[in-house]
Amino acid sequence: MHPNSIIFGSAYYEEYMPYNRILQDFTMMKKAGMNTIRIGESTWSSLEPEDGIFNFNHIDLMLQTAFDVGLSVIVGTPTYAIPSWLAIKYPDILVTGKEGQAKYGHRQTMDILNPNYRNHCERMIRELLQHIHKHPSIIGYQLDNETKSYGNYGPYAQQEFISYLKNKFPDINNLNSSFGLNYWSNRIHDWSQFPDIRGSINGSLNGEFKKFQRSMVSDFLNFQNAIVCEYLQENQFITQNFDYGWTTHSYGLQPEVDQVDAAKQLTIAGFDIYHPSQNKYTGKEISFGGSIARSIKNQNYFILETQAQGNINWLPYEKQLLSQAFSHFSNGADSLLYWNWHSIHNSLESYWMGVLGHDLRENRAYKEICELGQELKKYGDHIYHLEKNNQVAILLDHNSLIGLTEFPLTNNLIYNDIFRWLHDAIYELNIECDVIFSSQISTLTDLCKYQYLMIPAYYSAEESILHLINSYVEQGGHLICTYKTAYADEYLKIRHERQPYIINKCLGLTYQQFTNPDETTLKFSNPQLEKKHFETKVQVSTFMELLIPSTAKVIASYENTGFYDTAAITENNYGLGSAIYLGCHFDSTTLKDILFEYFQKNKFEMDQNQFPIIHKMGINQFQKTIHYYFNYSNSRQKVHVNYNNVYDLRGAVHVASITDFYLEPWDFKILES
Amino acid sequence: MHPNSIIFGSAYYEEYMPYNRILQDFTMMKKAGMNTIRIGESTWSSLEPEDGIFNFNHIDLMLQTAFDVGLSVIVGTPTYAIPSWLAIKYPDILVTGKEGQAKYGHRQTMDILNPNYRNHCERMIRELLQHIHKHPSIIGYQLDNETKSYGNYGPYAQQEFISYLKNKFPDINNLNSSFGLNYWSNRIHDWSQFPDIRGSINGSLNGEFKKFQRSMVSDFLNFQNAIVCEYLQENQFITQNFDYGWTTHSYGLQPEVDQVDAAKQLTIAGFDIYHPSQNKYTGKEISFGGSIARSIKNQNYFILETQAQGNINWLPYEKQLLSQAFSHFSNGADSLLYWNWHSIHNSLESYWMGVLGHDLRENRAYKEICELGQELKKYGDHIYHLEKNNQVAILLDHNSLIGLTEFPLTNNLIYNDIFRWLHDAIYELNIECDVIFSSQISTLTDLCKYQYLMIPAYYSAEESILHLINSYVEQGGHLICTYKTAYADEYLKIRHERQPYIINKCLGLTYQQFTNPDETTLKFSNPQLEKKHFETKVQVSTFMELLIPSTAKVIASYENTGFYDTAAITENNYGLGSAIYLGCHFDSTTLKDILFEYFQKNKFEMDQNQFPIIHKMGINQFQKTIHYYFNYSNSRQKVHVNYNNVYDLRGAVHVASITDFYLEPWDFKILES
Amino acid sequence: MHPNSIIFGSAYYEEYMPYNRILQDFTMMKKAGMNTIRIGESTWSSLEPEDGIFNFNHIDLMLQTAFDVGLSVIVGTPTYAIPSWLAIKYPDILVTGKEGQAKYGHRQTMDILNPNYRNHCERMIRELLQHIHKHPSIIGYQLDNETKSYGNYGPYAQQEFISYLKNKFPDINNLNSSFGLNYWSNRIHDWSQFPDIRGSINGSLNGEFKKFQRSMVSDFLNFQNAIVCEYLQENQFITQNFDYGWTTHSYGLQPEVDQVDAAKQLTIAGFDIYHPSQNKYTGKEISFGGSIARSIKNQNYFILETQAQGNINWLPYEKQLLSQAFSHFSNGADSLLYWNWHSIHNSLESYWMGVLGHDLRENRAYKEICELGQELKKYGDHIYHLEKNNQVAILLDHNSLIGLTEFPLTNNLIYNDIFRWLHDAIYELNIECDVIFSSQISTLTDLCKYQYLMIPAYYSAEESILHLINSYVEQGGHLICTYKTAYADEYLKIRHERQPYIINKCLGLTYQQFTNPDETTLKFSNPQLEKKHFETKVQVSTFMELLIPSTAKVIASYENTGFYDTAAITENNYGLGSAIYLGCHFDSTTLKDILFEYFQKNKFEMDQNQFPIIHKMGINQFQKTIHYYFNYSNSRQKVHVNYNNVYDLRGAVHVASITDFYLEPWDFKILES
Repeated sequence: MHPNSIIFGSAYYEEYMPYNRILQDFTMMKKAGMNTIRIGESTWSSLEPEDGIFNFNHIDLMLQTAFDVGLSVIVGTPTYAIPSWLAIKYPDILVTGKEGQAKYGHRQTMDILNPNYRNHCERMIRELLQHIHKHPSIIGYQLDNETKSYGNYGPYAQQEFISYLKNKFPDINNLNSSFGLNYWSNRIHDWSQFPDIRGSINGSLNGEFKKFQRSMVSDFLNFQNAIVCEYLQENQFITQNFDYGWTTHSYGLQPEVDQVDAAKQLTIAGFDIYHPSQNKYTGKEISFGGSIARSIKNQNYFILETQAQGNINWLPYEKQLLSQAFSHFSNGADSLLYWNWHSIHNSLESYWMGVLGHDLRENRAYKEICELGQELKKYGDHIYHLEKNNQVAILLDHNSLIGLTEFPLTNNLIYNDIFRWLHDAIYELNIECDVIFSSQISTLTDLCKYQYLMIPAYYSAEESILHLINSYVEQGGHLICTYKTAYADEYLKIRHERQPYIINKCLGLTYQQFTNPDETTLKFSNPQLEKKHFETKVQVSTFMELLIPSTAKVIASYENTGFYDTAAITENNYGLGSAIYLGCHFDSTTLKDILFEYFQKNKFEMDQNQFPIIHKMGINQFQKTIHYYFNYSNSRQKVHVNYNNVYDLRGAVHVASITDFYLEPWDFKILES
Repeated sequence: MHPNSIIFGSAYYEEYMPYNRILQDFTMMKKAGMNTIRIGESTWSSLEPEDGIFNFNHIDLMLQTAFDVGLSVIVGTPTYAIPSWLAIKYPDILVTGKEGQAKYGHRQTMDILNPNYRNHCERMIRELLQHIHKHPSIIGYQLDNETKSYGNYGPYAQQEFISYLKNKFPDINNLNSSFGLNYWSNRIHDWSQFPDIRGSINGSLNGEFKKFQRSMVSDFLNFQNAIVCEYLQENQFITQNFDYGWTTHSYGLQPEVDQVDAAKQLTIAGFDIYHPSQNKYTGKEISFGGSIARSIKNQNYFILETQAQGNINWLPYEKQLLSQAFSHFSNGADSLLYWNWHSIHNSLESYWMGVLGHDLRENRAYKEICELGQELKKYGDHIYHLEKNNQVAILLDHNSLIGLTEFPLTNNLIYNDIFRWLHDAIYELNIECDVIFSSQISTLTDLCKYQYLMIPAYYSAEESILHLINSYVEQGGHLICTYKTAYADEYLKIRHERQPYIINKCLGLTYQQFTNPDETTLKFSNPQLEKKHFETKVQVSTFMELLIPSTAKVIASYENTGFYDTAAITENNYGLGSAIYLGCHFDSTTLKDILFEYFQKNKFEMDQNQFPIIHKMGINQFQKTIHYYFNYSNSRQKVHVNYNNVYDLRGAVHVASITDFYLEPWDFKILES
Repeated sequence: MHPNSIIFGSAYYEEYMPYNRILQDFTMMKKAGMNTIRIGESTWSSLEPEDGIFNFNHIDLMLQTAFDVGLSVIVGTPTYAIPSWLAIKYPDILVTGKEGQAKYGHRQTMDILNPNYRNHCERMIRELLQHIHKHPSIIGYQLDNETKSYGNYGPYAQQEFISYLKNKFPDINNLNSSFGLNYWSNRIHDWSQFPDIRGSINGSLNGEFKKFQRSMVSDFLNFQNAIVCEYLQENQFITQNFDYGWTTHSYGLQPEVDQVDAAKQLTIAGFDIYHPSQNKYTGKEISFGGSIARSIKNQNYFILETQAQGNINWLPYEKQLLSQAFSHFSNGADSLLYWNWHSIHNSLESYWMGVLGHDLRENRAYKEICELGQELKKYGDHIYHLEKNNQVAILLDHNSLIGLTEFPLTNNLIYNDIFRWLHDAIYELNIECDVIFSSQISTLTDLCKYQYLMIPAYYSAEESILHLINSYVEQGGHLICTYKTAYADEYLKIRHERQPYIINKCLGLTYQQFTNPDETTLKFSNPQLEKKHFETKVQVSTFMELLIPSTAKVIASYENTGFYDTAAITENNYGLGSAIYLGCHFDSTTLKDILFEYFQKNKFEMDQNQFPIIHKMGINQFQKTIHYYFNYSNSRQKVHVNYNNVYDLRGAVHVASITDFYLEPWDFKILES
């Protein structure tokens, strides 16, 4: 069951503490306004120190003290980090990846297909749940932790992959032709010839194996879900803490999990978002992370982990902890759990700092979190469970992400870069957006609820969806679509038809050639844009297609190149709608200019503010509209608004009329209208 | 037999096609003026889908259609990419390299010494040739494909290496002393002590192993050659597609093949040249590639692969495809085969684009190739089989290349850099050159046909050749020789005699010390050069020897260094000739200045044009001289000439007198006189 | 026994020579003033070409010729490079590291715990010593060569590590809590669960394993020492050639050897110092290397290896060889042995040049070394065995070095950087210093002999020493201490108490937070410093702590940050002494300014010269003070002095009074007063 107020707290590991201070910690939490702890997910070896011998002392102590103090508890199944005795007992239980078998020590190194692992998992979960499931403080369970296939290329995986393929291709000739196995003599005549997939140089087949690896994750979570369900009490939820693509922080779509599929059996989807801080804190990761999170089950979501003090270089500036928390709520998060309560004194994440530092005393971070708790107490019910009604959606697709990994356009442009390029541009323009996954599109209605559809490099495109996109534009939708869309089929086989396949219709263009630019710049048809970039030319970066417009109008063409004035960016009217095609990559400021004009022209109501002032909206449970205004910068900023009769939640004051106001660095205002 | 007109066409893989369009493709080829396809070399698993079961449907279809349409065919032996059943049948058939055994998937991953591989190779070739060898469309065979040892450190290689060494060193003490095995206790007392070569830290021994690996390639090609010869019909040739050193394109001498040796049994040597394009297209790779190719068998050569649209970043500008083709012909290529006809819809080389893109329709590239075909029809016989009479040769040596790899002077200067430094300088001065391999030099006559001999870092030098170099200069030759020449013997043992060993005589200098420069610059004796570089000093880069001239005159000395005014570049008169010694590395513009002066001074007839205008010459089969003028730049260029009574091949017009003219970007003119 | 005059010579490997020239070489050495050769350490396969068959021809020849010519000999035990027959005989004798087992070829690749290796070592040493130990030319033995554990993670190492841990933690619960093994389910219930340490992600446990690896080295040297002692004659010494941390040259503390411990059984500690040359020659490596070397046994030390011509990029400028030699003597070196006499014509170190180049003739380097020999003959006894009386010490600690490797603050700041930051600053200020290892501190007296104690990142700090530091300051000492000091305990467990643990008392501050700076600069309280850096702000680099002073005075605070004016650098008076705390990292020029002021303020007598003029002092055996003045620069420099009645050793002239004088590039002067 979905909870009915904001879950606010942190992960807690009594097992890691240098001395017993649980009552002190929980009292500090309560004082800070926290209401929930998340426990248990990393501690199998404490719970089952020997094979079949269980010890629930830590868990019991945490549950009892939580109950005494009045904290709710989310219990994680302790399966993502195995005890060493289990690895010693079954030498094949550690995962075999592309470069060989893992050694014991790290978390997330087991073969989740291994039946011995599965059996011990099940016994561990059942013993734990049998012991605790009636405890009144438990509000829900988290399955495992950021589950992946862990690069599983082991014997079970390879065997099951063959079954998976046999199932899809009963006739092996179809396998050969779908993946082009004739190339370099890779053709197989029967399944016994199927080689170790680790040597494959076939990008399409490798992509299919990664699809299969994603299905392992869903399967494993469903396996755990079924067990937990047997013990689940009324009003308890089951969740998982999904995560995102990762650079040095959450960056884009998680390549290794099909979260839409994996979340099907969950009550609610949870997410872990980590983002840059200090001068690099922009709210962007919280925003795209929230858009993905909302889309997974088309409902509000949990933040199960986010940074308190975080990595060494993430120590938040003053006010940033407050800003971070409300940024999550403004995107529709129904919970905020820090990772974690205290900093750890040993091992790998010692400098991934919690709310408390290593000295376990009150500090600047704790004090700011206390302020946060105070504010939530005052008006938390007004911002809880916001409903978003966005007019813009971004279409995401896992196969396309993998497609551009297996078939890279350059060494430095991945799918998530292109997604972030589009997302960040409209974020800075204060246009909020949803995410829609290709797997969620089955009828035109799925698209038509949006005025604008943005498509970053939908490389591995299904025919049916491409036809729906044509219809979407025909019926009045506005499309913003990048290069490389529609190029390959769902098995990453490149299509041999005219490009962009099918949607050349709504785009009004085709192309036959593309390249990496060699000092090529853009020339704009729009005189204002051309004037703006006359001195400093807009550089085409990393990739460009040589567009051949039929009905499309040229927005920009390439100049300073031996291809002469080929079209680069176009706009096309089609039916009742229109479509912009971005045939190349370039800087995000120029993208913002082009999109601003496109949105404005089509009568989209544009906010008066742009980044670093970010405006977020939603409908609360009282059916009022909540307006957030964030200043994501280190300097004082003016905010342009015009409201009558609003309630300033933070100031706790009704305002008859409000126009422009100032926000201090990293500060924010919340208005209810 | 050598063909008697230009072979023009492309590789074709009916096996990879998404649908049957062979008649359409071959008709398009004919329309473009093509006359030849190259087939078969990658397709073992299609030809022998099961062990001993053969299927020649694809080959038959291609041969029949080629015959019907009127295309000639070069058939490749399908041995460089093995079927998976073969890898499964013999677990040791995949090559074991320095880091372990290869996994099945990639091409060129087998142990070419493995007897099972050899047996299956032979059976496959015999079955194929038995089936097709009488077909009238076949004009020749290509053995395998860009054959190498594939980094073979497997048990067969190590065993045979010991035999190879035993043969060279019947007395094991000579092995110990020739390779200095006493160092770090590596001495062996008997052959049973010879350790796994993969652990060796002895650069000389490692170099010898690489020499042995090169001999594997020759041996393997001879093995195939002998088989194919049994089926060879009159007028058919046998070739191989050799390639070059590789960075992101063909860059210099191929380190892994002794092409002179490997080509001995071939009718004609073929080559694959790939080069940068767009603004980075200069003709240099085609030029040095051609010089090497001509030298292998001292005759004209085939281009068996070159790029059509090529890699993503190679998409040719307008006119570049025409320019590329004639650049090859101007260097003496007798064929031009694109790799490949169509772009591939799956696997590893999907974005290495052919003549047609993935949409398999006529495109800009195809249209330019049609123009090319038209021109060849008009005057192809005038440019076919050009004879070059160059006055300058560059001496190349494989052991020296490996020597500077095993004993690097710095991290960023390899043998091919030094070769390219010399080659590119005279290329830009419009001085055409031949290549002569050290293994091709046995008498003074081999050198004396050239006025100038250029020697890049002939590190691993045979005494006899060094003596010949002295004689060459003595008898009037002009030598341009770089640092590090003559330093080591043929086993990469550094000589303990005065350096440069033996040729210190003709160079008139010695040296004892060398270093990497620490902000050192050059000071020129020539006042003009000194003046030119007075403001911006010429930096010595990467390596410098401290020269001690005896009779040599100083051209430049080091300044701004604690070694004070040591000589850096010298010139020496010796007998009837002279010798320049480049004791350090520096920028190529300065090198060009120095060489220009040296060539001019010795009455070498200098062209009036310099890069980006390149002038290439040759004698055609009508004993006329062909002059090519290429504009390798993106801007219009003036060309300085002065001819009477010439025939303009492209314009198809006789001209009584021609002086200066202009060339558009990437354009070229061909004159016959 | 300690020798009584300077040992001067080089390593010699008759085994590596291309022909017999031993008499010529030894005669050249004598002519150059050399008196000693070091032989034998790399040549096991020459000494024992077959298992149990010994051949001492090379050794005999060298000993006999040395005797004839009058050179002394240091004999190395030939155990650090094994013969291939030994590796073949015992397949497990090659070390197994983190990435698998070593292959035969390189030196230092054996498992020094392997009993078969130990047995063969012992037999080899005994056979050799039995044969030569009475030879009158031998003055001492070197054990092995730069001994390490060679990254030993093999089965013996892992087994012995468990015993080592059992011994420290009889109760396994203490192991679990000391290393925080509950984290990620790494807890073990009994020792049979202890996993392969190679997979461990526990930085503390990994640090303990490295401590154990260091103990292997001591143990192995003691094992050899005991054998050699049995053969040792009167007046002979036993030494080892220790080395340092390494980047491209000696850089800081050697992480893999606890030299204090390993040297306990030695007569005298020897060291190998290699340093940059040409414009990058500064004397710094010789200086810090000497400080460490003196501290190991609290006495003068040997330089057993240093560069003659060295690596390609180290070729010394004119006068640098002289300067290098006397730089070593000025720091207290009692020997100077080049590595090595001649350059090697084969294998891995062919371009690590000796005194002679490959041509084995007299050269510029040899001639300068002859000058050096002449000077040593003239006044060598005046500079021999200098006694240093420094007022400043730097505290070093191996666990802290490893601690900051396992728990890095950033990717680009290691322990040795911080050590060098402090060392180089006072070096440039002409303040000489000692090194004191944490393991050498047991009472307050150990500290109180110094006016100043400098502490670079004493991360892994023992409580008792932290208390002594408080007392040291209280009793009048001056402390200069960097960030990260006292943060963790001796098992690298981060402390949960107030930071800096214990010494917050003498420092007068605490802190709770730290981060990597995001464009943060420093603001100085001192108006002069603030003015100096007003235009170009001092950037905080890589790491910063947010200091909370109690009694400490702020020297600098952070500006341009969302943390506002937090303290960055402080000074505190405590008892009779004072303490500076450097809470962040920044450029070394600013550090020099701050330290200059601090030293000056506390009446420390500052030299009038600063780098590139370096002043070194010591008391010679005649109880006179020796003053060295070095010019470590490529330009002429003025030296400020003021002495009466001194003896100029190099000029061999008594001077009644000397004030300022000039030094040519790389020149130096030695005065006795």
